Amino acid sequence: MPIIEMHLLAGRSVEKKRKAVAAVTAALVETLEVRPEQVRILITEHTDENFAVGGVTIGQRNETADR
Amino acid sequence: MPIIEMHLLAGRSVEKKRKAVAAVTAALVETLEVRPEQVRILITEHTDENFAVGGVTIGQRNETADR
Amino acid sequence: MPIIEMHLLAGRSVEKKRKAVAAVTAALVETLEVRPEQVRILITEHTDENFAVGGVTIGQRNETADR
Amino acid sequence: MPIIEMHLLAGRSVEKKRKAVAAVTAALVETLEVRPEQVRILITEHTDENFAVGGVTIGQRNETADR
Amino acid sequence: MPIIEMHLLAGRSVEKKRKAVAAVTAALVETLEVRPEQVRILITEHTDENFAVGGVTIGQRNETADR
Amino acid sequence: MPIIEMHLLAGRSVEKKRKAVAAVTAALVETLEVRPEQVRILITEHTDENFAVGGVTIGQRNETADR
Repeated sequence: MPIIEMHLLAGRSVEKKRKAVAAVTAALVETLEVRPEQVRILITEHTDENFAVGGVTIGQRNETADR
Repeated sequence: MPIIEMHLLAGRSVEKKRKAVAAVTAALVETLEVRPEQVRILITEHTDENFAVGGVTIGQRNETADR
Repeated sequence: MPIIEMHLLAGRSVEKKRKAVAAVTAALVETLEVRPEQVRILITEHTDENFAVGGVTIGQRNETADR
Repeated sequence: MPIIEMHLLAGRSVEKKRKAVAAVTAALVETLEVRPEQVRILITEHTDENFAVGGVTIGQRNETADR
Repeated sequence: MPIIEMHLLAGRSVEKKRKAVAAVTAALVETLEVRPEQVRILITEHTDENFAVGGVTIGQRNETADR
Repeated sequence: MPIIEMHLLAGRSVEKKRKAVAAVTAALVETLEVRPEQVRILITEHTDENFAVGGVTIGQRNETADR
């Protein structure tokens, strides 16, 4: 530990995800006083039909906004 | 909050998933007295080889049933 | 399936949680055409120091608001 | 219950995953004294850019190792 | 990896949980050809008001059964 | 999104957890170009009998080490 599950909207570049896991790991190492190798991060990417806020998926919200 | 992770077998239509997140959000708003915008739903879809009951994946069970 | 993980702030009454799981299950039965027995719901309750929005825990936000 | 979420690196064969869920279910039936049908297993597979140890994704580590 | 999240009803003894994690780890080592140290298991225990099947919590079902 | 589930060994101080969620949120804001309010972090704390590496719980490992 720490073990981190990171839920993201799908579509970010490999480069951005690599920067994110490096920065999150550094943040945990500094604040929780763990060694970097203890930090494991699992990313799960969700399409815009698989994430909803207020009962509306992101895909649905974007459709409405486009009209 | 509430934050909801919804694990489903893959393959449902966008329409059905939209109806499901709308209905679940309404259910939480009514019973937990939260505002709709507070409810976030993350759907993770699992193929029929990535879900098992009783030690047997759904794919394996269907194969056996077909014989 | 569906298997639902429901993350809530700690402190809701048993009565409210029972109403919430009943309503969410009914919502899924109707929209995803599953049988009630297929729906499993896992509630995880988080204290107000174990949930953060915008980098600030709920406990911390409440402290600041009280001043 | 038990409900098991199994996070794996993507790419294992159907055969291996079937053996894994069968063996894990048997392990739980024996040690926790549950019936096999009570055990549900959800597999989530992560690509090598979606799992990181020590702030470095598996994909990134492999690139470096290849040089 | 593998990283395993194990959701259990609360109340099992330390002894049983130790046996369960040992057995599950052995099952994964054998079937997925990983080293034991790669297997991490996170147990989350749910009270009988925090797990529901068919829209009814375990606590509620037990109450009804007792009458 | 991003929605972050952070699994920690139980026992860290409120102060440390507040610093951790602030630092992780800042890390995500900078690398993924999201607004702070979009970042939600759920902490789940696990006792040392509810986390295992290599088939051995932390509690069990500490017992052995003490002898």
